Amino acid sequence: MDRNAEFRRWKAQCLTKADLSRKGSVDEDVVGLVQLLNGREQFFTTSSCAGRIILLDGGINGFEVQKQNCCWLLVTHKPCVKDDVMVALKKADGDAILKFEPLVLHVQCRQLQDAQLLHSVAMDSGFRNSGITVGKRGKTMLAVRSTHGLEVPLSQKGKLMVTEEYIDFLLKIANQKMEENKKRIERFYNCLQHALEKESVTTDSQPKEKFRAKNNSPHTHKKKRNPEKARGKYITEENDKGLENDDNDDPGIGATIFPEDY
Amino acid sequence: MDRNAEFRRWKAQCLTKADLSRKGSVDEDVVGLVQLLNGREQFFTTSSCAGRIILLDGGINGFEVQKQNCCWLLVTHKPCVKDDVMVALKKADGDAILKFEPLVLHVQCRQLQDAQLLHSVAMDSGFRNSGITVGKRGKTMLAVRSTHGLEVPLSQKGKLMVTEEYIDFLLKIANQKMEENKKRIERFYNCLQHALEKESVTTDSQPKEKFRAKNNSPHTHKKKRNPEKARGKYITEENDKGLENDDNDDPGIGATIFPEDY
Repeated sequence: MDRNAEFRRWKAQCLTKADLSRKGSVDEDVVGLVQLLNGREQFFTTSSCAGRIILLDGGINGFEVQKQNCCWLLVTHKPCVKDDVMVALKKADGDAILKFEPLVLHVQCRQLQDAQLLHSVAMDSGFRNSGITVGKRGKTMLAVRSTHGLEVPLSQKGKLMVTEEYIDFLLKIANQKMEENKKRIERFYNCLQHALEKESVTTDSQPKEKFRAKNNSPHTHKKKRNPEKARGKYITEENDKGLENDDNDDPGIGATIFPEDY
Repeated sequence: MDRNAEFRRWKAQCLTKADLSRKGSVDEDVVGLVQLLNGREQFFTTSSCAGRIILLDGGINGFEVQKQNCCWLLVTHKPCVKDDVMVALKKADGDAILKFEPLVLHVQCRQLQDAQLLHSVAMDSGFRNSGITVGKRGKTMLAVRSTHGLEVPLSQKGKLMVTEEYIDFLLKIANQKMEENKKRIERFYNCLQHALEKESVTTDSQPKEKFRAKNNSPHTHKKKRNPEKARGKYITEENDKGLENDDNDDPGIGATIFPEDY
């Protein structure tokens, strides 16, 4: 099977299967970006999280909170207030940790130059920990990641180690990070749209197909009446040229201990 | 100039120039790994940090501490005790933040399959946020990164927002993370050595050259009498085959909001 056909098959398989995440649907703040990507022949998203504030309770396994083994006391993709956290903390009997996690997005790309274009846009938008994976059989994935997180232990064996005043202070910072994260997502969307339009102008146009995929999310927690929640709107266009990272902005070039994207 | 010659030129340029990091030398815990990589034709390191606990003081710019604009109150690559932090905090007049940052390593690779091999080893060793960048002119870089950090705001406009007891608790966690980070570096070293040996066995051997590069670090803060501090010991070998990521372990494959490497 040729490369393009194989990619189309992978894409179709991925976008028609059930959303197996805990939430069961794409986060609101990243729906537009996911749709923009899935609407292009050369991309499809395999996982996404718009960014969240979470409170985890679990034994700290020596060094790292094991998400899967933790109790999720609180998850929000919106600004969080102290009372929400205080209520959630009452349920904690282990080592509770509050985290802010920015956007994470995984995009499978048809070929390396597509991943390079997307990588470049992601970096320019502030997602400085983004990187490409090339697997067996040529599966090419871009992981879009950022650095600006928070990870704050709050309690030890159920005993709260900080004051309410501190939690209030911490949440203000977390909410600011959430807000900045949202701006970066918008920047990413706009830059990507611009980059893709620029590519389209320079290539021969092909007949365009439009169709709206069904929302195949049987596990969706929150069903919203929003046609944009559909898994994808496909517009097929050929794209020949990929934008590449400017070497001068390549993370890590140069013998310094503090690379820009760290 | 052919690709191999160009890469050799980039490598020679990089490894002979001054170390422009604040510290001015390679961290002790990562020297072995850096040497192992620089001793192979197909790799050279462009930046590294073994992992550290840092205390930063600076205006939080809306959401993100700007490292370059902060005052560095404390930096250590070794376990840290409460008194060190309390002394450093006395100098803080802004918003002090304590961070644990694990290994970061940037390695330029001769070709994509070399980056894939290294990426695979890094992922298997626990550095789950690693990723490849391919720039213009084919410059291929692997960034080795991990997730298990800490980022904890401690003071606001110079006012300490937590107790000494909390700082003690926090540092125990940070030190545990430092310890696990060190184990991961060792695992990475061993897995890499094994992977490279496995490759050598399957390829035709070439005449080996050994030489010890001078330590060209005019800005070295701490000069230690340790020949292993030399920038590199070169053993040239040809490597044809690159190990690739097993797709089943590819981060992010699958429609889940919580990819394994997040």
